Amino acid sequence: MKLIRDPIHGYIELDGKITKIVSSPYFQRLRLIKQNAMAYLVYPGMNHTRFEHCLGVMNLSREFAKYALANNKTRLRDDIIQLSAIAGLLHDVGHVAFSHTFENGLILAKEVYGIDIDERKKKTHVDYGIRIIKEGLSNELDDLSSTFDTVSFLDDVLSEKPKSEEETFTSLLISNYVDADRSDYLLRDSYYAGVEYGMFDVERLKRFLVFLDGDKIAIHKKAMPIVEQFLLARMYMFENVYFHSVVGMYNAVLSHAIAEMIKKEIISPPDKIEDFLKFTDFYLLSKLDQVKEEFKDALLYRTGFKRVKVDITGNCLNEFSSRKTEIKEDMESTGGLFIYHEFEDVPYEETGRPLYIFDGEKVETLKAASTIIRSLSEIRKAIIAYHKKAENVANKYIKILQECKTLGP
Amino acid sequence: MKLIRDPIHGYIELDGKITKIVSSPYFQRLRLIKQNAMAYLVYPGMNHTRFEHCLGVMNLSREFAKYALANNKTRLRDDIIQLSAIAGLLHDVGHVAFSHTFENGLILAKEVYGIDIDERKKKTHVDYGIRIIKEGLSNELDDLSSTFDTVSFLDDVLSEKPKSEEETFTSLLISNYVDADRSDYLLRDSYYAGVEYGMFDVERLKRFLVFLDGDKIAIHKKAMPIVEQFLLARMYMFENVYFHSVVGMYNAVLSHAIAEMIKKEIISPPDKIEDFLKFTDFYLLSKLDQVKEEFKDALLYRTGFKRVKVDITGNCLNEFSSRKTEIKEDMESTGGLFIYHEFEDVPYEETGRPLYIFDGEKVETLKAASTIIRSLSEIRKAIIAYHKKAENVANKYIKILQECKTLGP
Amino acid sequence: MKLIRDPIHGYIELDGKITKIVSSPYFQRLRLIKQNAMAYLVYPGMNHTRFEHCLGVMNLSREFAKYALANNKTRLRDDIIQLSAIAGLLHDVGHVAFSHTFENGLILAKEVYGIDIDERKKKTHVDYGIRIIKEGLSNELDDLSSTFDTVSFLDDVLSEKPKSEEETFTSLLISNYVDADRSDYLLRDSYYAGVEYGMFDVERLKRFLVFLDGDKIAIHKKAMPIVEQFLLARMYMFENVYFHSVVGMYNAVLSHAIAEMIKKEIISPPDKIEDFLKFTDFYLLSKLDQVKEEFKDALLYRTGFKRVKVDITGNCLNEFSSRKTEIKEDMESTGGLFIYHEFEDVPYEETGRPLYIFDGEKVETLKAASTIIRSLSEIRKAIIAYHKKAENVANKYIKILQECKTLGP
Amino acid sequence: MKLIRDPIHGYIELDGKITKIVSSPYFQRLRLIKQNAMAYLVYPGMNHTRFEHCLGVMNLSREFAKYALANNKTRLRDDIIQLSAIAGLLHDVGHVAFSHTFENGLILAKEVYGIDIDERKKKTHVDYGIRIIKEGLSNELDDLSSTFDTVSFLDDVLSEKPKSEEETFTSLLISNYVDADRSDYLLRDSYYAGVEYGMFDVERLKRFLVFLDGDKIAIHKKAMPIVEQFLLARMYMFENVYFHSVVGMYNAVLSHAIAEMIKKEIISPPDKIEDFLKFTDFYLLSKLDQVKEEFKDALLYRTGFKRVKVDITGNCLNEFSSRKTEIKEDMESTGGLFIYHEFEDVPYEETGRPLYIFDGEKVETLKAASTIIRSLSEIRKAIIAYHKKAENVANKYIKILQECKTLGP
Repeated sequence: MKLIRDPIHGYIELDGKITKIVSSPYFQRLRLIKQNAMAYLVYPGMNHTRFEHCLGVMNLSREFAKYALANNKTRLRDDIIQLSAIAGLLHDVGHVAFSHTFENGLILAKEVYGIDIDERKKKTHVDYGIRIIKEGLSNELDDLSSTFDTVSFLDDVLSEKPKSEEETFTSLLISNYVDADRSDYLLRDSYYAGVEYGMFDVERLKRFLVFLDGDKIAIHKKAMPIVEQFLLARMYMFENVYFHSVVGMYNAVLSHAIAEMIKKEIISPPDKIEDFLKFTDFYLLSKLDQVKEEFKDALLYRTGFKRVKVDITGNCLNEFSSRKTEIKEDMESTGGLFIYHEFEDVPYEETGRPLYIFDGEKVETLKAASTIIRSLSEIRKAIIAYHKKAENVANKYIKILQECKTLGP
Repeated sequence: MKLIRDPIHGYIELDGKITKIVSSPYFQRLRLIKQNAMAYLVYPGMNHTRFEHCLGVMNLSREFAKYALANNKTRLRDDIIQLSAIAGLLHDVGHVAFSHTFENGLILAKEVYGIDIDERKKKTHVDYGIRIIKEGLSNELDDLSSTFDTVSFLDDVLSEKPKSEEETFTSLLISNYVDADRSDYLLRDSYYAGVEYGMFDVERLKRFLVFLDGDKIAIHKKAMPIVEQFLLARMYMFENVYFHSVVGMYNAVLSHAIAEMIKKEIISPPDKIEDFLKFTDFYLLSKLDQVKEEFKDALLYRTGFKRVKVDITGNCLNEFSSRKTEIKEDMESTGGLFIYHEFEDVPYEETGRPLYIFDGEKVETLKAASTIIRSLSEIRKAIIAYHKKAENVANKYIKILQECKTLGP
Repeated sequence: MKLIRDPIHGYIELDGKITKIVSSPYFQRLRLIKQNAMAYLVYPGMNHTRFEHCLGVMNLSREFAKYALANNKTRLRDDIIQLSAIAGLLHDVGHVAFSHTFENGLILAKEVYGIDIDERKKKTHVDYGIRIIKEGLSNELDDLSSTFDTVSFLDDVLSEKPKSEEETFTSLLISNYVDADRSDYLLRDSYYAGVEYGMFDVERLKRFLVFLDGDKIAIHKKAMPIVEQFLLARMYMFENVYFHSVVGMYNAVLSHAIAEMIKKEIISPPDKIEDFLKFTDFYLLSKLDQVKEEFKDALLYRTGFKRVKVDITGNCLNEFSSRKTEIKEDMESTGGLFIYHEFEDVPYEETGRPLYIFDGEKVETLKAASTIIRSLSEIRKAIIAYHKKAENVANKYIKILQECKTLGP
Repeated sequence: MKLIRDPIHGYIELDGKITKIVSSPYFQRLRLIKQNAMAYLVYPGMNHTRFEHCLGVMNLSREFAKYALANNKTRLRDDIIQLSAIAGLLHDVGHVAFSHTFENGLILAKEVYGIDIDERKKKTHVDYGIRIIKEGLSNELDDLSSTFDTVSFLDDVLSEKPKSEEETFTSLLISNYVDADRSDYLLRDSYYAGVEYGMFDVERLKRFLVFLDGDKIAIHKKAMPIVEQFLLARMYMFENVYFHSVVGMYNAVLSHAIAEMIKKEIISPPDKIEDFLKFTDFYLLSKLDQVKEEFKDALLYRTGFKRVKVDITGNCLNEFSSRKTEIKEDMESTGGLFIYHEFEDVPYEETGRPLYIFDGEKVETLKAASTIIRSLSEIRKAIIAYHKKAENVANKYIKILQECKTLGP
């Protein structure tokens, strides 16, 4: 038994089999990938990495699974606890340098700079992860369960195509509106940012999870306020941290720098399994010397770029959306010195797999049960950022923004 | 007024003049230098940087100065508060990649590999800092005080050669057995490690600081337990974190890698003022491809090196000291695959500038007042670490270690 | 300067004048009055008292006033900071034994048992407080301000009839939807309950308070999420702590016990100024020997009473409201062994003095600015509790409850 | 399974059998007995009770037992975990009003006022506890273990006369220099006082407990710093909280008030099992009307008594000890308006059952292993407190104190 000291969950216990996975280079490299890309330029404490996040998710997946099994009679076997732990551990193993910001760089490379590239948007790290599991970790994942084939179990769960009740169970625990992944990142990101937005009572939450009908995760009604708090907490973290306009600006600058690196063939997206090891934050930072100096100055010394202080919302958002092509052309022609960046998050909706509230007898969906949750709406906004060299271009859009604002929200 | 959210001190307020200093590239680059080098390989949360530490020291220096001025009638003028804040802010501005580990790399380069290099041991970052202040920040430091020449004030304070009562005052607040620097790093390093060793009641401490006789910092007797706790807290942080044998091993590996980089002229120690900007953690990490693969594997993937589990102490320490030359030769011949690394810290002594305890009438030194402090002794130990390729060399020393151990402590 | 160690705010500093008020028996007696009456029967840590709450409100009122003054140019004089602190300190000085539960006992005595008594509902402690200020603390309040008559200032502020801009300012800071009183109790009650429901970022909140137009408290738009969190936090504290059905049951039992004490003339509501000193929690507890043994057993040993597990809400609430007279008669005839108890709280509405959101240019009300706040609705529910001796009576209502439930919400 | 929210340990889980014990009036009454008597007159948050402390000790005893069993192969059966939990739960069940202060009142009644009374000093609450277990809780304790007779197990353990390896094991876990009792009170008292003195890493401590040779509790060497911190933490809590001279003064005043109550036969020490229920804090407070008004004013309104600011230590302590009879006479003749009160605590010694440090091979005592622990010495001091009516008597001793002080420590 190995103990790792974690500021969020205390001592995280690793048994021999999990230690073996954690010790592989494919997992160790996560120490070199920041959880929140450039957020540390606004919240200086946010230097934490995917490594500790993944350990935390492992820990919570194991806890969630234990309580969900104990809270009702299921036919599920006990080794689903260990499998859930491993699914939690590996859910992000496919992230490369700067996580989602790299994915965004791929999108820009394709959509703005027209480079022929294989990108799957938010799915990129999932695809990468499944490849790492299959090609890089099969030794470590051998022997883990007498009942299941671990690799195909993880493949089904991480690609969100569960094929059995057990896979559904694990999938719901690590990838859902309220899950082990989000639980960990809300607590962890709050801790390192030094804010209280993302705090919620995970000790209570986990004790009230119930697995129903072989395909539903419900929370006992007694803990419904925690679920509300959780979804609100997440929304506040988006508004104040992840979608903070300065955080967003620097992430967008980094994405454009990455796109430039791809365009100039300074880097190419990881292809073979060994490439993943190379794709760390420091690898990309060390390439900044070879792209526009303005990007380097912005990302290393926080200088040169400005954002327009008014966010683009409501009416203006539509106005800007109608100019997508024009905007792309302007980003391309300025090589990313003018930036238009959209943020979008849906706090909760019931089109996919809803959350359920269970009072011991009756089951209803979360929206049916909670007025507050019904009041939550999608977060959607955009920002304009620019280097002073692209002031002219920016001014054109600032004028558009002023005009659409006068027309009301 | 700018607010920065800090997990340790809450909101840190920056006025216009301090914002100007913080915004300079020489300060911003501190975001790219970890506070505790490779400690994150043992405590995964320890990714925090010199940037936030320096802001924290600024904040505490300002607080300490305010209370120390208020707690007794001094002739000191109020602008000493702002100057103390700036001295705190800039006390570590000279650190380069991986802080003290780089300094240790310089020592190894000279002492083990015989390279002709200008190194000042622990003073290196102080010398570098004074150059940055003089050559890089003179604009930002202009106009700060109507009474003092800020640059020469900082030079005297940071080089620990105060020339006036004011300089002595500031110097005692930021560089002493109990000071703003140590206060910040104990609290901050504990927070990110997730341990409680380094916690102490800084809110009480600061309220009981007194400046006496123009050259003494005393703590009111009511807060003496805090001083004891502080020095014990620091000692525990050394034993459990800074001098943790695995942390020490990876820092030593990094130092040898740096020495190899210098030897092979892959890097050369910063010379001109612009060089400092380049010397970030990621710069060194990106050079690991050009040194021994064993170093890269150890530092990026935590693999390949082992340590001997028994620390070298007491009798054995003398035995090993007597073999200094032999050890150096073995480190050189294995190119750092065999490592002998010493740790040394003096928790408190009264040869320099003692701390004083003041009960409102009588002043005595801390050692005179506290049995516990008198019981503290120097921490001194060494470790042996080695890559399996240098097992033979290591075995020789392991045998010596076993022999000296049988002779008692 | 006196320092008091407070778990919520750290060191609370008391100057000489405030120390004088705090030292008076009228204030000291607040140590003997629990903040949350019988809540400790559910949350064992909730033994905290009005004493520390009042110190905390003093501390926050001072902070809020400082920042609100600094954040915009007002004509208000600096001594409004000290006056706000004192208003915060004394806002609850009129509470007697078990705070609101005693007020509720008075209401029951009058409404259920028909005793001719002077009760002002939630205003009782305000009236009592103003009498204590006028008759008991005039010495301590002398000399406090050169500009204002402190006693009449406090009278106007606490009775919520401000007569000047200064009185309005103070009144808004300590008695509003977001104020120093609520800020303290949310943080404090959460801390002692050991829950996270009531936590919010008071350090940020206070820095963004603005006093506008001589009669409005606004919060800068940057801190609007804090305001939302605050009102949600308060709502969760009501749902989970203050209106917890078991907490409510024991408070209701205590109220009936108090009503019985009044009816039997074991106690009479405080009349003369000296009486207030006598009315502590322990005074009432020591009288439990003289009322129904069932009350004593419930309140001291948590035994004998049960609650119906389903809360009365929606449709049923109307059904029960229509039976008010019948219910009162049943409570009277069983002497409180059958209890029907209603809870009611309005999280926020804009009929009185709304909160405003200010973006530096535009001012709008909170409801106009926030969808989430618009979704908040009044909390209203009722519980049935009973001793087994009154099971028959309870069963009648349990049947009614089952029937109205089948008719839908 | 019942969950109780505890600010220190999170959710404390109670199974059916433990719930039965907790629900008995003998245990419930602990809600009415403060953990630290009058300490709340200095630290206003310290209103917490024996009830929550006992739940906390139960929780930690269970955890300690689990890990100590897991950490080495022992012959002990698993039901020792449940028995250890119950021993922890009931270790303080014999405390009556104001805990140790009542015991001190009994001592004063006998020694100063010469009343013929059966007091066992610090053993009083143990004796009372065993009687409650035997006479009041035998029903609840039935059926708890198939192997052991629970009542006689608890009798042996609580009276510190273990008769089997199992009893020794439990006894060492709940009554030792580092144990579940002290662990809980250090964390809990620190939390409510709002200080950091008593914090230590209990999560690490518990994971490194080892039971050796059937009669020793050892801590693995890796956790030795925690043991040092623990004993230092406890020492600081004594110096700053439990033995704070103002806390001590009011506790001493209360002890004299209790002695007066006994002398005047207002109360008599509990004799029959039902009497224990009556002996709550509020019961004694409600009797203050019948003793000297000076006591009531001091204890309820914190007024009238003073302490001499200089503690009596060293040389002076001997001087005062030699005047024991004179002091007793003066306390008696002033009826407790003059008070001399001694404090004494031994942080650690190895005459009884030492703590052991275990490095996996070698076992040594804590003193052998730790310089810091060797430096700890007994805390011994005394204070003089007096009401102004006894100023003359006090002045006599103040003069003695000034004289002995000039003779040096």
